[in-house]
Amino acid sequence: MAGDNRTIVLFCQADLLKWLRLCVYNRTDVLTKGERTRQAILDTAAALATQEGLEPLSIARLADATGMSKSGLFAHFGSKEELQLATVDHAAAMFVAEVIAPARSAPRGLPRVWALCDHMVDYTERQVFPGGCFFASTSFEFNHKPGPVRDRIEKMIRSWLSYLEHAVEQAQQAGELDSRLSAREIAFQLDAFAQSANAQFQLFRDRRVFEEARRAIHDRLEALRPARAA
Amino acid sequence: MAGDNRTIVLFCQADLLKWLRLCVYNRTDVLTKGERTRQAILDTAAALATQEGLEPLSIARLADATGMSKSGLFAHFGSKEELQLATVDHAAAMFVAEVIAPARSAPRGLPRVWALCDHMVDYTERQVFPGGCFFASTSFEFNHKPGPVRDRIEKMIRSWLSYLEHAVEQAQQAGELDSRLSAREIAFQLDAFAQSANAQFQLFRDRRVFEEARRAIHDRLEALRPARAA
Repeated sequence: MAGDNRTIVLFCQADLLKWLRLCVYNRTDVLTKGERTRQAILDTAAALATQEGLEPLSIARLADATGMSKSGLFAHFGSKEELQLATVDHAAAMFVAEVIAPARSAPRGLPRVWALCDHMVDYTERQVFPGGCFFASTSFEFNHKPGPVRDRIEKMIRSWLSYLEHAVEQAQQAGELDSRLSAREIAFQLDAFAQSANAQFQLFRDRRVFEEARRAIHDRLEALRPARAA
Repeated sequence: MAGDNRTIVLFCQADLLKWLRLCVYNRTDVLTKGERTRQAILDTAAALATQEGLEPLSIARLADATGMSKSGLFAHFGSKEELQLATVDHAAAMFVAEVIAPARSAPRGLPRVWALCDHMVDYTERQVFPGGCFFASTSFEFNHKPGPVRDRIEKMIRSWLSYLEHAVEQAQQAGELDSRLSAREIAFQLDAFAQSANAQFQLFRDRRVFEEARRAIHDRLEALRPARAA
């Protein structure tokens, strides 16, 4: 069971590294004109998906939003599904660049767990996507639409949760977090606060939720420090 | 500020009582044949909305799903928007019947806070709606679609959160929960666990999340008991 879990974590981390390479690649200046155009199209596509949905995102809708011709877009993405999958990968690369990459500079253990959660709240607070977290909204949209797009969204969220769990596990191994609660459950709780801040902000537009989420995460981690454990 | 909050809580409770009356009314045997037909149509409508979305829910789609004629459905709901609003009200009545009404039989204070959270997790675990919590999925769907349907969904979620907050406040007043953290923040944290269980179950289909959410809620409430507060 523990071995299985380890395999999943390593598998998911490989995915994250793939997205990390993609996002580093996106930010270099060596992109060709065609590649830069593709990135600009996908920026628009991901933003639209968080406001109007990923399912209605078609070549025609994107042509309308970018002012490009449908035939020009077909040259980049052969079909609606290919466009949707490229949009999910692009959003994943952005998430990795905004949340995971900066947290990797924090030392392993508790500082990295905190950095991951803080960047996660920050990413929703700064509205990196105009409709809030791309994966929160598209997962609800595709929950009941089996197929490659749903699979890709699920894979990304699973990767995020297992990366966070792995960071918690490292903090437990370093004796910085209580090991009596599983790393999986701690990750579940920390992620829940960030997710709720995103969902409530999109609905109520009250910025207090971000500070409330950070305080909840901070208090939870403090309560889990072995020195304070009962 | 506290006074404003009180007004909002009372206002939201009035809404919940309206939905409560609606759901009690739905369950009596005094419904006319026309009313029973309307309820059966709305059961189908709410279930469909959690699987296919509330936006695509039209008179035509519902005619197809129920086997009724479009003209027959027009007699119940004059327009697509009227149908969507009636569906939200019906789902709200079901939520009140499944989560709030049974918790009202628990004594005020900590037992009622626990009962509300436990019934909330239970409602998503039992799949009262086949696509999970109606309000979680439709709020993501309508976040960026301003209008009466979004307003109604927002009102319902606000009512739920304020009812939970009010129950936490009663527990604080009874000395059963620490008052140093605001009732609003405690309600935010408890709700976050239930919401995450719903979201993760819809995506991963792993039932462990329900027990994890219950344990997280239980542990959070235990940590907030004054006897245990630092």
